[in-house]
Amino acid sequence: MNRKGIIIVVSGFSGAGKGTIMKALTAKYDQYALSVSATTRSPREGEVNGREYFFITNEEFEKLIEEDGLIEHAKYVNHYYGTPRKYVEDKLSQGIDVILEIEIQGALQIKKQYPDAVLLFVMPPSATELEKRLRGRGTETEDVIRQRLNRAVEESVGIENYDYIVINDKLEDSVENVHQIISSAHLSPGRNLDFIETIRTQLKQL
Amino acid sequence: MNRKGIIIVVSGFSGAGKGTIMKALTAKYDQYALSVSATTRSPREGEVNGREYFFITNEEFEKLIEEDGLIEHAKYVNHYYGTPRKYVEDKLSQGIDVILEIEIQGALQIKKQYPDAVLLFVMPPSATELEKRLRGRGTETEDVIRQRLNRAVEESVGIENYDYIVINDKLEDSVENVHQIISSAHLSPGRNLDFIETIRTQLKQL
Repeated sequence: MNRKGIIIVVSGFSGAGKGTIMKALTAKYDQYALSVSATTRSPREGEVNGREYFFITNEEFEKLIEEDGLIEHAKYVNHYYGTPRKYVEDKLSQGIDVILEIEIQGALQIKKQYPDAVLLFVMPPSATELEKRLRGRGTETEDVIRQRLNRAVEESVGIENYDYIVINDKLEDSVENVHQIISSAHLSPGRNLDFIETIRTQLKQL
Repeated sequence: MNRKGIIIVVSGFSGAGKGTIMKALTAKYDQYALSVSATTRSPREGEVNGREYFFITNEEFEKLIEEDGLIEHAKYVNHYYGTPRKYVEDKLSQGIDVILEIEIQGALQIKKQYPDAVLLFVMPPSATELEKRLRGRGTETEDVIRQRLNRAVEESVGIENYDYIVINDKLEDSVENVHQIISSAHLSPGRNLDFIETIRTQLKQL
């Protein structure tokens, strides 16, 4: 069979653990690739160009937009963030599923262009658990924590636009849930039209 | 969480192995129940009332139809076949997923009444493999085998109405595929509205 890759969009509350799940997933299974976004914000300490993000200038970013070189992009707090098209399309044609960690606006842009994309929303098991995780990091000020919780309230409005929710209680379970969801998605008739057509033709020839 | 059961409709070519997969699945995982159909045909040797089918009279069957006691029914070769509603609804409300092995007409009747039902179509890895399995049983005449292959051609037209295909090459893989599909289905936002609403309310109260 000619397996074509699927775009997996992952969103979720800050602190729900989506980054951790996706890192564990791609480490465990090699049929998944994590897309790297481009951004115009400056690298933070420890961030490496091409690993966390492609760090590019405003001019470079706007040129990519003009050339339709991004499959989605958005502006947050005066900085651009976007997903380069080439990487995604290359992987898909190699049969690799590409995971994009993006916010809801981007997720909906993707679904419009790629109706087959699978949209996941990662949630904590409870709101108090989310708060605990945000505080547990110990790196954020009270202000930032409040901002993230408020943003979670806003983001929670969009959950119904997603295909699946992943309730991140235990990491290993969440990794398996995501793997199950993607494996199942590969079994839709629409993604197996060639196979179905082959069987039909063979049956008629028997 | 208040898990509600899902209706799983399984169809597939005769000889593709759907019965075997479902038996192995329900033996392995106890969150699944196999629905038992009612029929007006006579029991074959070895068939037990209430296990393979509920064997009932024409009058009893037509009374069930009148009382809306069946969630789907069809007539094949002068015999009625149908799915009693009570068993299915009882299991669903207990959080158990109910598996119905039925043909495409019944499958579409179910999807109309239960849009959340998940429809699976079991296929062989190839048409020649299907023929081999049908012949391998050694119990059918050439005529019957030809009939089944011809029916497979007809049934193959409806595959696009199903949500997923299961390509039954190795039994254990197929069992896991079906389990993955059903587990994923439980993660749709629509099946978790209470949980999502709870998190929303909690977030606002933090």
